[in-house]
Amino acid sequence: MSDQPSITVAELAGRLGGTVKGDGARLIREIATLERAGESGVSWVGSPDFLDQALCSEAGVLLVQDDSALPADRTVIVVSDPDAAICEALACLAPPVNKVEPGIHPTAVVSPDAVVTGAAIGAHAFVGTEATVGSGTQLFPGTYVGPRARIGADCKLWPNVVVRERVTIGDRVVIHPNATIGADGFGYLQRDGENRKIPQIGTVVIEDDVEIGANTAIDRARSGVTRIGRGTKIDNLVQIGHNVDVGEHCIIVSGSAMGGSSSLGHHSVMAGHAGISDHRKVGDYVQVAAKSTVMKDLKDGETVRGIPARDARRFLREQASLAKLPEWMQRLRGMEKRIEQLERMLKKED
Amino acid sequence: MSDQPSITVAELAGRLGGTVKGDGARLIREIATLERAGESGVSWVGSPDFLDQALCSEAGVLLVQDDSALPADRTVIVVSDPDAAICEALACLAPPVNKVEPGIHPTAVVSPDAVVTGAAIGAHAFVGTEATVGSGTQLFPGTYVGPRARIGADCKLWPNVVVRERVTIGDRVVIHPNATIGADGFGYLQRDGENRKIPQIGTVVIEDDVEIGANTAIDRARSGVTRIGRGTKIDNLVQIGHNVDVGEHCIIVSGSAMGGSSSLGHHSVMAGHAGISDHRKVGDYVQVAAKSTVMKDLKDGETVRGIPARDARRFLREQASLAKLPEWMQRLRGMEKRIEQLERMLKKED
Amino acid sequence: MSDQPSITVAELAGRLGGTVKGDGARLIREIATLERAGESGVSWVGSPDFLDQALCSEAGVLLVQDDSALPADRTVIVVSDPDAAICEALACLAPPVNKVEPGIHPTAVVSPDAVVTGAAIGAHAFVGTEATVGSGTQLFPGTYVGPRARIGADCKLWPNVVVRERVTIGDRVVIHPNATIGADGFGYLQRDGENRKIPQIGTVVIEDDVEIGANTAIDRARSGVTRIGRGTKIDNLVQIGHNVDVGEHCIIVSGSAMGGSSSLGHHSVMAGHAGISDHRKVGDYVQVAAKSTVMKDLKDGETVRGIPARDARRFLREQASLAKLPEWMQRLRGMEKRIEQLERMLKKED
Repeated sequence: MSDQPSITVAELAGRLGGTVKGDGARLIREIATLERAGESGVSWVGSPDFLDQALCSEAGVLLVQDDSALPADRTVIVVSDPDAAICEALACLAPPVNKVEPGIHPTAVVSPDAVVTGAAIGAHAFVGTEATVGSGTQLFPGTYVGPRARIGADCKLWPNVVVRERVTIGDRVVIHPNATIGADGFGYLQRDGENRKIPQIGTVVIEDDVEIGANTAIDRARSGVTRIGRGTKIDNLVQIGHNVDVGEHCIIVSGSAMGGSSSLGHHSVMAGHAGISDHRKVGDYVQVAAKSTVMKDLKDGETVRGIPARDARRFLREQASLAKLPEWMQRLRGMEKRIEQLERMLKKED
Repeated sequence: MSDQPSITVAELAGRLGGTVKGDGARLIREIATLERAGESGVSWVGSPDFLDQALCSEAGVLLVQDDSALPADRTVIVVSDPDAAICEALACLAPPVNKVEPGIHPTAVVSPDAVVTGAAIGAHAFVGTEATVGSGTQLFPGTYVGPRARIGADCKLWPNVVVRERVTIGDRVVIHPNATIGADGFGYLQRDGENRKIPQIGTVVIEDDVEIGANTAIDRARSGVTRIGRGTKIDNLVQIGHNVDVGEHCIIVSGSAMGGSSSLGHHSVMAGHAGISDHRKVGDYVQVAAKSTVMKDLKDGETVRGIPARDARRFLREQASLAKLPEWMQRLRGMEKRIEQLERMLKKED
Repeated sequence: MSDQPSITVAELAGRLGGTVKGDGARLIREIATLERAGESGVSWVGSPDFLDQALCSEAGVLLVQDDSALPADRTVIVVSDPDAAICEALACLAPPVNKVEPGIHPTAVVSPDAVVTGAAIGAHAFVGTEATVGSGTQLFPGTYVGPRARIGADCKLWPNVVVRERVTIGDRVVIHPNATIGADGFGYLQRDGENRKIPQIGTVVIEDDVEIGANTAIDRARSGVTRIGRGTKIDNLVQIGHNVDVGEHCIIVSGSAMGGSSSLGHHSVMAGHAGISDHRKVGDYVQVAAKSTVMKDLKDGETVRGIPARDARRFLREQASLAKLPEWMQRLRGMEKRIEQLERMLKKED
């Protein structure tokens, strides 16, 4: 009845390349945390820190690296990397995948000179003149691919995604619903009390294996390109300004924003609602904490926090001091009075 | 000429179950604040605090609980709950409602095995295989309802809303334009310097009477469900991460974000741009102030503010102390010098 | 091969109304910063501050106001306003513009009583009953224009924009993809532990020459209008609440939010992620810094920063004091001990 597939412990172990100890015939239907998993559930012990929770867990089977601390009658699958194995287990238990039928849906509008061989073009999709959409790529219903845009192979553009003209997208890129790639950068020239639009004639390049969240906006460059490096993952509702350069394998969490012409190195992380101001250059392996805004250039490896963002330990020390400040204000008033008193006493003595 | 309807004071009183004092024949065309309402306008006195403003108001009629403090020649409608009555008055004066024609628009694409009996499916809408759309529900143009999604009765999905596969939506739910329900959660496994996608095989459950703002994104669970409780109202541009659990009757204001696996109790409020970090559990009747971020679990009834969020009164005391700090820095330097001076004097005496 | 046009230095000078010194026959293909421009690139010297960079630049031609400090063999175009000239140069070098074909695309759905004479209505666009779309206006694919909405002349509504019923939009307005104009304001009446929807019967007026970013949401008024003044430019992912009034020629940067019934004067600026609370009135020529939230009314010309926003210089002084606070906490403890010591010494003497 349910569309949730099931799998036996033994089959699952086979798929994960692991070794079963215990009841290989047990049927598994769901994946859950140690706390929530029940008899038909698989859970995992990512590190020895979770051992106590594992001992209490009612999960039907546990993925573990080492089962020596668990009771002998516990059903487990021993694997080398439980965190990676649970990801594979999720794939094993996934319901049927939502796919666009190969070919061009009769309601789609595809320019006769666009190249869409091997792609799946969904209902009400639009592909503009001289655009190319690679083989294995799926355009879900309502997507827009502008003139001369180039989408690589095996991409997924979920419903109502907009990719404007001349944008280039690599292979295996996933773009979630209602995201906008290649809108005009936000640039105006102030003259005579008015804002004159600066033409935004550049484009956007999204490299291979990037993922872009729902309702995220990545603006085209004024001239040249806005670039998102290979393997970078961008969450929902993120803003990437014109001429931004993001390196490879970054993580940019929901609500973050990068101002025009700013850059981020590789393997850097922006936590939720973080910001980088216009023109700032941020290095590799940098971590920007939630709701922090980077207002100066940052070197490789820095961890920053606050508005403006500063060294995270320094920020925490400042916050700890600030927490004590209201009480100290009282003490300071007292100290000042005691100094006055001492001064009076010494004056009297003179 | 205008599409703004009009109503007499007497008719309005009838609809509101109130009592007219004064000119029942006066024609009312608009609703406005006490400050802005003119001769053809209705306004309201929500509490005695607004009495002074009411005395100055030029409104043609006032909805009041008690008219004893108003001049005798003032036209009023006496009602038991003026705030509630003005809401009803807004409904009375509403222009014709924007509705989708019942049935399936010829340009819509509805899977032959989808169930849409009694629903209104607008132009260019898409309903996937085995999806159900309840009676009285309106899908506005350009909406996407994925395979096996279930939409209840009397819902409104405004234009270009995307509801992905297997999402479940209750009755009387309103989803504003360009909102995205059920996109993949943002989860990656870091291995060998790359971010491997964790499959997001769960779903989203939106309970009855929920309202979801424009361009808001609610992610599906990794496994299990992301849940929005009955009667909760979510504003525009909000992010709800994977596996989040939101209780009943909450208010989540524009720009707020809840990180993956976080939870919010019932009747809680997140003000504008507020955040809750991943995995944090927040209780019932909690108030999170604007631009604050909750980084630890919160009990029922707490009111918090700041980044990280802390007790709101404590935050305000800290801010008050901080405001005095620049001036105190001068005084402290002075105090230090006076101590040195005292020390020198006492040394001399020895 | 490339779709990037080229132009000679002499032709460019002609278009800009400037004077060539040097090689007028040189071919220019791109526009870039002084740092990045190469032999076929044009760059500009916006002020004498950039002179050092200009001396090092490899740009094929420079737009300058005064070339006296540059080597005599340098190719330049002398113009009166280099910043304005580079904007015109961008227009000269722009690739072919993305346009919707005039007329109504066969897949568009246009109500028979809508007026769209002279407009270009793209694929899968929807125009509701009694709506008007002005001459020269382009509706890109997937746009929605609700019943009785009025769009002026020469506007661009990029793909998947939603303009709801009765909204009024002026001339030359640009709305970027996935933006939502006229969704219901976020207003509820709390009664018996539930949130009752307050009808949102008002509308939105967008005046001439406004630009609205991708995935931005501008809510309709509860009653009356939400207004965006002439020439104001709004970036991506911005929230404008119900009954907000924004003056002329403002700049509202990405991620900003204005709460219900707040107002902003003319020529004011909200930097990234800035906020204005409900009902607050903010004057003309005000600057709100990034991630700041205005919680009280502001007069003309104020520059504010922080949460809550306060005078920017005061905020910076507070931050400077806060930075010193952890070190002072040590000194204060020392001072307190020294006072105790002094007190003991004086007591002994007595």
